[in-house]
Amino acid sequence: MNQYPILDRVNSPQDVKSLNRKELKELCVEIRKFLVEQVSKTGGHLASNLGVVELTIALHRVFDTPWDSIIWDVGHQCYTHKIITGRKDQFDTLRQPGGLGGFPKPEESPHDAFIAGHSSTSISAAYAISRANQMRGSNSHAIAVIGDGAFTGGMAYEALNNAGRSRTNLIIVLNHNAMSISRNVGAFARYLTTIRLQPGYLRLKDHTETVLDHIPLVGKPVKRVVQSSKAALKNALYHSTFFEEMGFTYIGPVDGHDLKALEKAFVQAKILCRPVFVHVETTKGKGYEFAEKNPLIYHGISKFDVETGNPDLPEEDSFSVVFGNYLTELADHDDKICAITAAMKQGTGLTPFCSKHRNRFFDVGIAEQHAVTFAAGLASKEYIPVFAVYSTFLQRAYDQILHDAAIERLHVVLAVDRAGLVGDDGETHQGVYDIAYLTSIPGVTVYSPTTNEELKAQLYKAIYETEGVVAIRYPRGCDKKIYRSQNPSADYLFLDERGKNLAISYGRIFHDLYAVNQKGHFGALLKLNKINPLSDELVEKISAYHDIIFFEEVEQNGSIGEHLLLQLNQLGWRGSFRSVSLPNGFFKQGKVPQMLKEYRLDQEGMAEILREEWETK
Amino acid sequence: MNQYPILDRVNSPQDVKSLNRKELKELCVEIRKFLVEQVSKTGGHLASNLGVVELTIALHRVFDTPWDSIIWDVGHQCYTHKIITGRKDQFDTLRQPGGLGGFPKPEESPHDAFIAGHSSTSISAAYAISRANQMRGSNSHAIAVIGDGAFTGGMAYEALNNAGRSRTNLIIVLNHNAMSISRNVGAFARYLTTIRLQPGYLRLKDHTETVLDHIPLVGKPVKRVVQSSKAALKNALYHSTFFEEMGFTYIGPVDGHDLKALEKAFVQAKILCRPVFVHVETTKGKGYEFAEKNPLIYHGISKFDVETGNPDLPEEDSFSVVFGNYLTELADHDDKICAITAAMKQGTGLTPFCSKHRNRFFDVGIAEQHAVTFAAGLASKEYIPVFAVYSTFLQRAYDQILHDAAIERLHVVLAVDRAGLVGDDGETHQGVYDIAYLTSIPGVTVYSPTTNEELKAQLYKAIYETEGVVAIRYPRGCDKKIYRSQNPSADYLFLDERGKNLAISYGRIFHDLYAVNQKGHFGALLKLNKINPLSDELVEKISAYHDIIFFEEVEQNGSIGEHLLLQLNQLGWRGSFRSVSLPNGFFKQGKVPQMLKEYRLDQEGMAEILREEWETK
Repeated sequence: MNQYPILDRVNSPQDVKSLNRKELKELCVEIRKFLVEQVSKTGGHLASNLGVVELTIALHRVFDTPWDSIIWDVGHQCYTHKIITGRKDQFDTLRQPGGLGGFPKPEESPHDAFIAGHSSTSISAAYAISRANQMRGSNSHAIAVIGDGAFTGGMAYEALNNAGRSRTNLIIVLNHNAMSISRNVGAFARYLTTIRLQPGYLRLKDHTETVLDHIPLVGKPVKRVVQSSKAALKNALYHSTFFEEMGFTYIGPVDGHDLKALEKAFVQAKILCRPVFVHVETTKGKGYEFAEKNPLIYHGISKFDVETGNPDLPEEDSFSVVFGNYLTELADHDDKICAITAAMKQGTGLTPFCSKHRNRFFDVGIAEQHAVTFAAGLASKEYIPVFAVYSTFLQRAYDQILHDAAIERLHVVLAVDRAGLVGDDGETHQGVYDIAYLTSIPGVTVYSPTTNEELKAQLYKAIYETEGVVAIRYPRGCDKKIYRSQNPSADYLFLDERGKNLAISYGRIFHDLYAVNQKGHFGALLKLNKINPLSDELVEKISAYHDIIFFEEVEQNGSIGEHLLLQLNQLGWRGSFRSVSLPNGFFKQGKVPQMLKEYRLDQEGMAEILREEWETK
Repeated sequence: MNQYPILDRVNSPQDVKSLNRKELKELCVEIRKFLVEQVSKTGGHLASNLGVVELTIALHRVFDTPWDSIIWDVGHQCYTHKIITGRKDQFDTLRQPGGLGGFPKPEESPHDAFIAGHSSTSISAAYAISRANQMRGSNSHAIAVIGDGAFTGGMAYEALNNAGRSRTNLIIVLNHNAMSISRNVGAFARYLTTIRLQPGYLRLKDHTETVLDHIPLVGKPVKRVVQSSKAALKNALYHSTFFEEMGFTYIGPVDGHDLKALEKAFVQAKILCRPVFVHVETTKGKGYEFAEKNPLIYHGISKFDVETGNPDLPEEDSFSVVFGNYLTELADHDDKICAITAAMKQGTGLTPFCSKHRNRFFDVGIAEQHAVTFAAGLASKEYIPVFAVYSTFLQRAYDQILHDAAIERLHVVLAVDRAGLVGDDGETHQGVYDIAYLTSIPGVTVYSPTTNEELKAQLYKAIYETEGVVAIRYPRGCDKKIYRSQNPSADYLFLDERGKNLAISYGRIFHDLYAVNQKGHFGALLKLNKINPLSDELVEKISAYHDIIFFEEVEQNGSIGEHLLLQLNQLGWRGSFRSVSLPNGFFKQGKVPQMLKEYRLDQEGMAEILREEWETK
């Protein structure tokens, strides 16, 4: 590929170490071209990766993986790292089934020290690795690369609190991204701003507004944050003490696009042999302009994607959008309704709510634990909090749901988005465990809509007609509109009651079971809308059937089918029961339709199973 | 009661507001007498409560519950609060079945604003309440009272990060306890020390050691901490900025035993009408000396209890102690074994390990999330981390177990203590959900010993013969020594194989099932040692039986019996299955034997059930 004369020569970290300054500069340009070209074909996280090209190269020039360990927080900014560590030829398979992962994966390469996907874990992992190195007498370094958004996650502080006292070779690289300030809530973001405006960095000291105008790419967001607290700016002139007080040596701020400055800072950090905090400033989407100038070549990358860096925006008609719009509508007429997000406002469809009801909208940062307990606190004062959160991220708040909300039966509504298989993001993002953990918490009601009407009806019921903790879980994507709602408010529906065979399902795949039933009637059909708890009355009705097949897009352990079988058993039922679910396991990246097919949860698979079970009888 | 002339007149917060200074001083003495007298009879947390007598009285003199809300973090220091708010006459039922709770309980009194039990939740809850107040236009205050130990929990930072920007009537009272410094790990503890040594507080500035010697009750612990970082002490002379940078107005430090000073600080905080951080310094066990001088009257309170404040120390022969000693022994011969605790070193039996293998012992503070990811990081470098943690507290690390350890099958050992019903601490501490959440995570192996020999054998297997995440769960207390181990390393044992009836159990209650079987043979008896996953081979053997009864001391949803029934069903098994477990619910404080009896999980109940099921056939 003549486009990439320097990149062609880079197949391992050793290769970047041997390039000269001119070649390195060219390499940065080539990598950006490569990233834009690849991601425009496969999809993926573009902006965050464009922001860390120099940072990644500098790390590999100063450190030596896999002897040293680089741990990427969240991990979607690992593309340049993967390119450098011998995986550039796999980029056409990025996020594809069986292909290169979009996140670090130790099983892929020894250069990937630790798994990533969820936020704020890198310092814990890096500190542990630095401790292990210390215990075995190795001089290797552990480097955590973490964005400022991830610092809103409490785990990061738990780790900092432990790491700062140690004398290990631990380096924390704070990837401070100017563009994410508007989305990073809270005091810490403001604090970071104060660190940026250190004496050596400021050109003018007199007027706040003028100073801010002179900081490239900062402009409006920072201005809004800082104006709300003049005191913070005063502190900007002080020596920043937070990280030192936590026990780290502080180096920075460093221009994250100046390769030479980065290398110098990392060398300084490396020789210190004690915990160091390197504060790097990058610009998300840096270097994108050339792609903007070549739209025909680089089609498919919308400017919007580059600005937010989020490739996972909900489609127009998706459940997330339907949810967000309807919640906003309900909130128009009821000022007790509040919405909470953990840094996923757009992804969960809450942008309209935030616009219309700003004083009742709470973005708590990447802090699911706090989000749930905060919701419980609002509920204790008769507000109606709705926390919209991805199934996989809600895992982090298990204790808070149980302890802070459920014991006192506080009325907290959980809108669990991305429930079920998610596809491209792989093992770290699948939403197939929430049924197990939610149904393990006493008193939690769980709804699972199949259609838009059901989503709205169930949201209404969750808010106005259900006590205690209520969850509504729905998948990524849209209403398939095969099944059209009949009585969307009902807890369950027998759509067909003839015979002794009963097929049961809920959620997205009910469309498919319904389609199968329309084509060739196999037996009675039960649709669950409220999936937990199943009332005694319903279980009695189910027990009238002799052969039951339960299809669900969730892991087997803790599934609704598993609970139902025991309940039927307790009634003395002795019929035939078959649970068709996902196996207990982790699910690699893939396309959801193919994955459902693999587990016979698509129309073909279901039809086959129904025939297997019932045509032989 | 002539002993309590002032206390007799206190039946509501209004009553403390009307006392004069002399009476208030006397009240403090009487409350301490009362606490020592009561807790020596019922048991409970004495030292922490002795430390906050003045603090609590001051809060009730300045604020007005329930219009204002006081939220106690962890909550076991709420006794004076309960005395003042009309519950002193119930103290003889403290922590007894059906009696006064040892933690705040909204259902008990409107003066208890929020549930407590787990750490670091108070700021989230208080901030939410302050937001709710603001939204409804109320001037009420929300006050979180949180100890410095709880600041090691990441949730507290998530909350601070959100709360600091707000303009709500939120007050955070940091109850900074000098005696807990030696146990609070990390940079934050050291930082708090620096705040204490402010200019107005220091008498000498020249020599570190001399200064420290002059600070009452600080002495050795602080000296050890500060000497490890001279830089921190220098900062002591600066104005502390951390809390202000987080957006709070800082007031303090305030002498936590000077009622007048406390009231003044709280009044200042109250009129500010914006987030305030009041730094209060207390001494745990303050005022205990008079009890020491009257040992005949106040028998039952050991000085050790007062010093540590921990009434839950493991008995000499408990599973915790057996575990800790054996782990230490294994670690004597294998320097890869590491032990981790989240601020529960004594409770989990790890004191010997800490003494012998200090460099491989990690107390991470109240930070279970970090503990698990830290363990995963150690495992990624071939160390063998054993995290000893209470079942109820491990709930907080659900996401980390799944995401950071299990996906990559990192070899992390979880020693899950206080599994099963715990008794006096009530709903917030029961360990009956871990089976559901652990078995919902793919690849997790779970062992459950009944005897000391099995605990050791299973710990050995977990460390040396099992891959991936392994949990061993055992209850509070000791080996009941009814059943004596036969083949403690086996995954399961058929102790009796005759007939078509099979009773199954595991863990602590297996002693009882065994005893019942000894007295009158009811059928075959299966003991599970490894309870998850159940091998295909075992399930096949079980399927040879026609009538099965499964006894387990765990919640029904997600139970082993529930999983087994589905597995049997998948083999085409059509026998009779009865699961005898705890219902899905929360369990109030009580005595464990009585609770087991209530759910028929004691010998009598089991025998009855076996007769019911099998004698009629």
